[in-house]
Amino acid sequence: MSERLSEEARKSLLTPLFESGWEMVEGRDALTKTFKFNNFVDAFGWMTRAAFWAEKWNHHPEWKNVYNSVEVVLTTHDVGGLSALDAKLARKMDGLA
Amino acid sequence: MSERLSEEARKSLLTPLFESGWEMVEGRDALTKTFKFNNFVDAFGWMTRAAFWAEKWNHHPEWKNVYNSVEVVLTTHDVGGLSALDAKLARKMDGLA
Repeated sequence: MSERLSEEARKSLLTPLFESGWEMVEGRDALTKTFKFNNFVDAFGWMTRAAFWAEKWNHHPEWKNVYNSVEVVLTTHDVGGLSALDAKLARKMDGLA
Repeated sequence: MSERLSEEARKSLLTPLFESGWEMVEGRDALTKTFKFNNFVDAFGWMTRAAFWAEKWNHHPEWKNVYNSVEVVLTTHDVGGLSALDAKLARKMDGLA
C-alpha cells in the first residue's frame, strides 16, 4: 500500500473519487473534499466513525471541523504523495457519509 | 454569555488563558492554541470529550487535527469576536487535556 501511486493506478483509483467530489490540493500530491452535515453532532459523529478506520489502517487524515463542515486532506507522508491507502480511506469516508 | 468581552472582562478572563498557552489569532478577535498528544487516539479522544461540552454549551470550536496535534480556534460568530463562552470552552479544553 505504501508506495506512491503510479500513473496507471491514479487513473483507476482517483477517477471515481473525482466523480464523488474529491479534488487534488493545489500544489500538493494530496486529495481534498469538504463534507457537509446537518449539524455538529452529525459532523463529529461521522469523524468518529472515520477515526476508527484511520486508526485501524494506521493512516490518518488532516481534517478541519467547523460546526457542520469537515474539510479533509489525504496524503501519505511516508511516500511524499498519494498512495493506495489514501484512495481506500477516501472511499471509506464517502461510504460513511 | 453572548456579548463581546469588555476590556475589563478581557483582563480577568483572558490573562490566565494566555498564561496557559492560548494566543490571539492575528487579525481576528479569536483565541488559538495547539494541543499536542502522544498519538492519534489520545488526540481524537480529547476532541471527543471536548465535543460533548461544545455541544452542551452550543458553542463549537474551529479545530484542525493532524495525527497527534489539534489546532483550536475559538470565537463567537454571533458577536463578531470573543465572548465569555470562548473563555469557558478554552478553560474546559485545558482541563480535559
